[in-house]
Amino acid sequence: MTYCVGLLVEDGLVMIADTRTNAGLDNIATFQKLYRFEQPGERSIAIATSGNLAVSQAVMSIMSDGFENPQTGMLETIYDHPTMFRTASYIGRAIGEVMRMNNGGSQGMGMAFDVTMLVGGQVKGGRLRLFMVYSAGNFIEATEDTPYLQIGEHKYGKPILDRAITFKTNLPDAVKIGLISMDSTMRSNLGVGMPIDLWGLRRDALETSLSTRIEPGEPYFHDLQERWSSALRSAHQSIPTPPYF
Amino acid sequence: MTYCVGLLVEDGLVMIADTRTNAGLDNIATFQKLYRFEQPGERSIAIATSGNLAVSQAVMSIMSDGFENPQTGMLETIYDHPTMFRTASYIGRAIGEVMRMNNGGSQGMGMAFDVTMLVGGQVKGGRLRLFMVYSAGNFIEATEDTPYLQIGEHKYGKPILDRAITFKTNLPDAVKIGLISMDSTMRSNLGVGMPIDLWGLRRDALETSLSTRIEPGEPYFHDLQERWSSALRSAHQSIPTPPYF
Repeated sequence: MTYCVGLLVEDGLVMIADTRTNAGLDNIATFQKLYRFEQPGERSIAIATSGNLAVSQAVMSIMSDGFENPQTGMLETIYDHPTMFRTASYIGRAIGEVMRMNNGGSQGMGMAFDVTMLVGGQVKGGRLRLFMVYSAGNFIEATEDTPYLQIGEHKYGKPILDRAITFKTNLPDAVKIGLISMDSTMRSNLGVGMPIDLWGLRRDALETSLSTRIEPGEPYFHDLQERWSSALRSAHQSIPTPPYF
Repeated sequence: MTYCVGLLVEDGLVMIADTRTNAGLDNIATFQKLYRFEQPGERSIAIATSGNLAVSQAVMSIMSDGFENPQTGMLETIYDHPTMFRTASYIGRAIGEVMRMNNGGSQGMGMAFDVTMLVGGQVKGGRLRLFMVYSAGNFIEATEDTPYLQIGEHKYGKPILDRAITFKTNLPDAVKIGLISMDSTMRSNLGVGMPIDLWGLRRDALETSLSTRIEPGEPYFHDLQERWSSALRSAHQSIPTPPYF
């Protein structure tokens, strides 16, 4: 399982990913799912992945190494695209490339090697954007109406986002709300777990503004978990008793 | 879609069900999913259903009318069982009976006529109990460790239950927390909707303590939604700013 969330607000972009993977129920491990591709001043991009780990890792590898564009015959890496839109298209093609490489092995095995990715960032001269790229290579974009996108186990952590996030939310609050959403998911689903990778990019900075890994017991996150739990408890206590009896 | 939750606490039992059904995305309707079977002083039982509506309704019908017990050849209704355990087994058999009736039509169509039901209540001389009965006829029971059971779209409304419900929670608080869980689900998933059916049974009362339908705009529930939303907003505002920048 996995939970990743991307939040695109006026000030910038936040991406948060857990690190738990499981192959079956009894094979649990920790793998990074948040990758950064950056040329400071030129482009700053992060990708969060969910779904088949082999496909995700292969896509990250071939995007760094480059793979051939069938139209031009040239080797292209993730650093070769002039806009975020073209970058998202390229990632869609990279997923397709890995799917084709794997098909020989998986054909007829009835296995779905699906992945879904969040792709966020900014290329010099373009807008800060956040996309969700599907296995099929197509993608959707976060907008001012819905300034967040989620992949993986998205349901537990959606209520807080639906209530608290708007495009006008400031960047530190977006980080905080994203971490609450992650905490809600971890609390209710063992398939999502610490450490948590966190990345932030201020609009037009073109260079990572925030990058950290939150380990179990990290004081701020631990305090956030405690405060959130006790706030939820006192929130329901402050609601009057139902009149239905 | 559907969301139903049952909460079994020291004082009694609460069951809450939404009423939205959909056949495909564009055929939305309102159907009752919470059924009551009661002989005051003898037994008080409620059943909440999720899954295929035709199967659920057929199960409710044949349990009222009675169907043959293959061992005894006698017609049995839901009122003929001396314990809640035997009642849950009977409901499992009723599901099996409807599945067999339907199989002639559905065989080879690749359609899953699955249902899952929450069954809660008390029979005179026995304990107040809450079960989740699966399509296969088997069932699990809520315990002091995990005093709630959910069916349908359970993920959105689980974080509040995981944090706020214990076996010691009093009955009005259980109603309140159940309604918050329902509100969280409705807010994030259009497949779950008003009106909400609510039923409560005090331990050893053997007669409904609370039965109501909450319609859109009902003042208490509307107030609960507003207070919960504003409590969530102020809860995250009271958490300090992340130190990661």
